[in-house]
Amino acid sequence: MGKNKSLGIFDSGVGGLTVLDRVLDRNYYDRIIYFGDTARVPYGSKSKETIVRYGKQDVRFLLTEKVDEIIVACGTVSANALEELQTSFSVPIRGVIDAAADAAAKATRNGKIGILGTEATIRSGIYARKLNAIAEKLDVQSVACPLFVPLVENGFCTFENPIVRETCRYYLQPLKEAGVDTVVLGCTHYPLLRDMIAEFFGDSVTLIDQGEALADTIPLGKVSPSELSLSFCVSDDVQLFQKNLKVLLRHSVHPAVTQIDIGAF
Amino acid sequence: MGKNKSLGIFDSGVGGLTVLDRVLDRNYYDRIIYFGDTARVPYGSKSKETIVRYGKQDVRFLLTEKVDEIIVACGTVSANALEELQTSFSVPIRGVIDAAADAAAKATRNGKIGILGTEATIRSGIYARKLNAIAEKLDVQSVACPLFVPLVENGFCTFENPIVRETCRYYLQPLKEAGVDTVVLGCTHYPLLRDMIAEFFGDSVTLIDQGEALADTIPLGKVSPSELSLSFCVSDDVQLFQKNLKVLLRHSVHPAVTQIDIGAF
Repeated sequence: MGKNKSLGIFDSGVGGLTVLDRVLDRNYYDRIIYFGDTARVPYGSKSKETIVRYGKQDVRFLLTEKVDEIIVACGTVSANALEELQTSFSVPIRGVIDAAADAAAKATRNGKIGILGTEATIRSGIYARKLNAIAEKLDVQSVACPLFVPLVENGFCTFENPIVRETCRYYLQPLKEAGVDTVVLGCTHYPLLRDMIAEFFGDSVTLIDQGEALADTIPLGKVSPSELSLSFCVSDDVQLFQKNLKVLLRHSVHPAVTQIDIGAF
Repeated sequence: MGKNKSLGIFDSGVGGLTVLDRVLDRNYYDRIIYFGDTARVPYGSKSKETIVRYGKQDVRFLLTEKVDEIIVACGTVSANALEELQTSFSVPIRGVIDAAADAAAKATRNGKIGILGTEATIRSGIYARKLNAIAEKLDVQSVACPLFVPLVENGFCTFENPIVRETCRYYLQPLKEAGVDTVVLGCTHYPLLRDMIAEFFGDSVTLIDQGEALADTIPLGKVSPSELSLSFCVSDDVQLFQKNLKVLLRHSVHPAVTQIDIGAF
């Protein structure tokens, strides 16, 4: 068995923690550095040009930590900047779109797939392109959900909350009416609303989680939790992030969180 | 009559346009530069330290435009960073809190005042401090409304929209129950939700608009619209901002918008 590998993983904020959770399930990497760009969150409402610029800074920072691989745990950067990142850096960089598109194409029975994502992800049209490259006949319906990230970032994640209920209805009703049987949670924040989205659609619809789909492509390793070195960096306040970490990450960790100035990279 | 003056005015995004509108009513400045930090919006969910850092960069940029005065057209920066800005720079810098607190103290009849603001503004406690310095007996109730800025930034501004209705009810109901007769719109985005907030409270509650209160302290001048040089700079995409400008600014302008790299200041 070869040497274990180290991973750099980043997101605009806390959404990427849903990907990290799934990656940790694989016990594959022995060193992981997570970066959350909390001083500039959200990315999903910004322009492609700005998203590319921020993504390059995020990668440049992670490279100073000498990681072997990078995972873009952000749907918006994966949709708008992955190619630019892959051609600008020699380290292997993977996004969350390919595996999710494959999983959605496999899951659908009636060929009707719904995509939920940020403004920038839906504007990129990437899911429709990927899915139609897999099978031309797939009917892809996309909905930009710009209010989902603010809901999650502000802790509004229960269906009892009338704002959450109304926002789900507003964004999801068109997909229900279109008769989709598979829905891609195309932003890494959305798994934190998964229970509400699942309740709205009912059992007949399969939800695709980008982090879960990506993690399925990572080999199962043998690194025990005690052998793993896991650290977190953020661009805004450390304590705000630590609080989120405890609530949002399923895996229990003793988080060492450091603040960095991402603008300098 | 002396030489006319030039003004630099900034906000995290489009909210400051509600202040600019009121400033334009005064015909006082003959050159105005507006900066919107659209690549890093919102500020209201970020830490004090990050807000101070961003505010200093915003001022530094405006100073390269050789302005005589600066208005902080952002409730969050005014609440969290005004003193730091005033001691760091020699140019006169004004925020939007003082005039609004004065106006609220004048308007209330029953002494019960509600404050709506971002997380960071409410956390700062500045309105309660200012109001209790004016009159100790004032009863100040503060509510952080983190979802209002995302609503406005995404164009959700009508009461027919059920998300807007539920969000208003969620944040405003406690103030209604507390019997406030005056409510400060403590974020420059909130005047764009004014009609909805007014409808919720009804005629018995006076709403205080920070931009309106600040503009009342600016002398009435004689600069005609044709004599005014007005320009806009943003840190994200120019076209996104131009679209907002046409919808959100009451004054009709021919917007020259330039993109700048605020991280470099």
